[in-house]
Amino acid sequence: MSSLTSHVTDVVIIGSGPVGLFAIFECGMMRMQCHVVDALDMVGGQCMALYPEKPIYDIPAFPSISGEDLITNLKKQAEPFNPTYHLGQRVERVIKDAEADVWVVETSKGTRITAKVIIIAAGVGAFGPNKPPLDHLSDYENKSVFYYVKRREDFRGKKIVIAGGGDSAVDWAISLSELAQKVMLVHRRPKFRAAPESLRRLEELSKQGKVEFVIPYQLDSLKGSNGHLNAVVVKDLDGNTKELEANVLLPFFGLSMELGPILSWGLGIDHHHITVDPSTSETSLKGIYAIGDIATYPNKLKLILSGFAEAAQAAHQARDRVYPGHVWHFEYSTTQGVPHQEKEENKTNSKH
Amino acid sequence: MSSLTSHVTDVVIIGSGPVGLFAIFECGMMRMQCHVVDALDMVGGQCMALYPEKPIYDIPAFPSISGEDLITNLKKQAEPFNPTYHLGQRVERVIKDAEADVWVVETSKGTRITAKVIIIAAGVGAFGPNKPPLDHLSDYENKSVFYYVKRREDFRGKKIVIAGGGDSAVDWAISLSELAQKVMLVHRRPKFRAAPESLRRLEELSKQGKVEFVIPYQLDSLKGSNGHLNAVVVKDLDGNTKELEANVLLPFFGLSMELGPILSWGLGIDHHHITVDPSTSETSLKGIYAIGDIATYPNKLKLILSGFAEAAQAAHQARDRVYPGHVWHFEYSTTQGVPHQEKEENKTNSKH
Repeated sequence: MSSLTSHVTDVVIIGSGPVGLFAIFECGMMRMQCHVVDALDMVGGQCMALYPEKPIYDIPAFPSISGEDLITNLKKQAEPFNPTYHLGQRVERVIKDAEADVWVVETSKGTRITAKVIIIAAGVGAFGPNKPPLDHLSDYENKSVFYYVKRREDFRGKKIVIAGGGDSAVDWAISLSELAQKVMLVHRRPKFRAAPESLRRLEELSKQGKVEFVIPYQLDSLKGSNGHLNAVVVKDLDGNTKELEANVLLPFFGLSMELGPILSWGLGIDHHHITVDPSTSETSLKGIYAIGDIATYPNKLKLILSGFAEAAQAAHQARDRVYPGHVWHFEYSTTQGVPHQEKEENKTNSKH
Repeated sequence: MSSLTSHVTDVVIIGSGPVGLFAIFECGMMRMQCHVVDALDMVGGQCMALYPEKPIYDIPAFPSISGEDLITNLKKQAEPFNPTYHLGQRVERVIKDAEADVWVVETSKGTRITAKVIIIAAGVGAFGPNKPPLDHLSDYENKSVFYYVKRREDFRGKKIVIAGGGDSAVDWAISLSELAQKVMLVHRRPKFRAAPESLRRLEELSKQGKVEFVIPYQLDSLKGSNGHLNAVVVKDLDGNTKELEANVLLPFFGLSMELGPILSWGLGIDHHHITVDPSTSETSLKGIYAIGDIATYPNKLKLILSGFAEAAQAAHQARDRVYPGHVWHFEYSTTQGVPHQEKEENKTNSKH
């Protein structure tokens, strides 16, 4: 354990998606310092990793905002409170120091953080793509088989097989058809789950020969060598196979939740979600809160905006643990101010 | 009752502050049509009436936003759902039509709206200024005595008495000192409750003779005729009086909550707030929800962002009442889209 770097803080936030980032702000307003751990090597969670450019319509007071802009704004809002980010590492262990009444968090990179409070804002967990059950798949991953499109330009002139029936499959088929040599869309059903307007465009591209439907088929096997794909073999519902000549396969089968180590911390769990008291956001372990998509309670809505409210709630509750015995008056940013903005402006807040 | 104009809709929202406006959006996403009633003659509630220009710091993903911009954005976000606004009128009566299982709402202007659902987002109620207990006050109101500054320019060259010790008194004393002939600030204590930077500026203006402190004094009476003020009489704690020559009095004694008729609708009430089930936002009356500052439950936070989450919750719950027996799949704006934007863009939402 000698390689551990050690920190002591008020709050450890697990997850740096929108809800985790807003928790930094809310904790900061309550005068609590935060360290943030995320498995990805950037902040922003799914918003940044999966749909940075797509407009989101249901963030209050943004008629439309991209995932990337949402994260940029939230990060900026948190900045005055000087959070410390520990990225590209998972929380592996959470240990209770009963004597000091604190939690000790250890990450996969050997970071050790001691804090009174843990706020879990881990979304679906350290998430990853659902992978098709194909032999030798790992030989091709990140060479010919990709689960995300990071740079559209990388696919120019390619023969691409896209597999799946949801938004991602449909939207990328449309988008990549503009620059690919060929796009084949493999789905085991004739029905796609996507926006009506996207489906209309897909139909049109099919008529123009720019997207080829391979329906109803599913993936059977990969042909190629050294990670270079020559063909994707598909089979129909009766087991009849055919080969699709291709150099890229993009399987879009959604995300798997990988709650991973979190399951072993002794938290109350219900169907891969952490159960919390909805009036406090506290889990079954004292001082550990869960907010956003990972938290569950009766009538829970998995909306970013609900996670924002839960972040405020958890921060208010955590404050009593970080500052025990302190009598708080309800304060608005009017009286409290936001660091670094203090001198420039009159301060106010939601309230008069 | 023949003068009533009648409407039938899905949802009546009472209150057009930020939370009421966001409820239109959330109801719209659930395919419910809304009529909105507000006592003020504009939308936006306190944000617009009391602090349109002051920055708010705790709206998620806005490091800073003015009350006016917040309202403008929320109104724009609600627009695709074509809400009908009934402004400058209070809801006076709410009657249950048991047979049709609907609510009938009647306003002070004779508007009658029938709806399955009522969402009360009335903040502090139909709010109004706390008025000083002065004889003949009403003779001077809106002529020489004002509770809000609507147009700063109206006060150019005037001799102004400002009464009060909070943000509004301090901020307007500072602001109006730039164009008034004279500003006198009457407060019964030597301590003001305002941002440190504002207090510093106020001290400076006092030293420069631009603001005159009349401390510790309180208002005693008004002198003038036909609504035109000649002097404000103030008295100290021992009852000694003096006259301040003035043509304007601005009393800033905060807001009173005027829940008014709402108290008589049979809703559960606790300390002037409506009690709700926090897991549904439903009040003690079926089909009537309360959200935002007017709603209370254990650990309730009076934050605009908490009201946003409650708006989403109430809309989801209300949907089952407006569309009974309908089986809903959890839908993102991905699949559902937002009206009027449908054709231009790929749709997505908070979620993948």
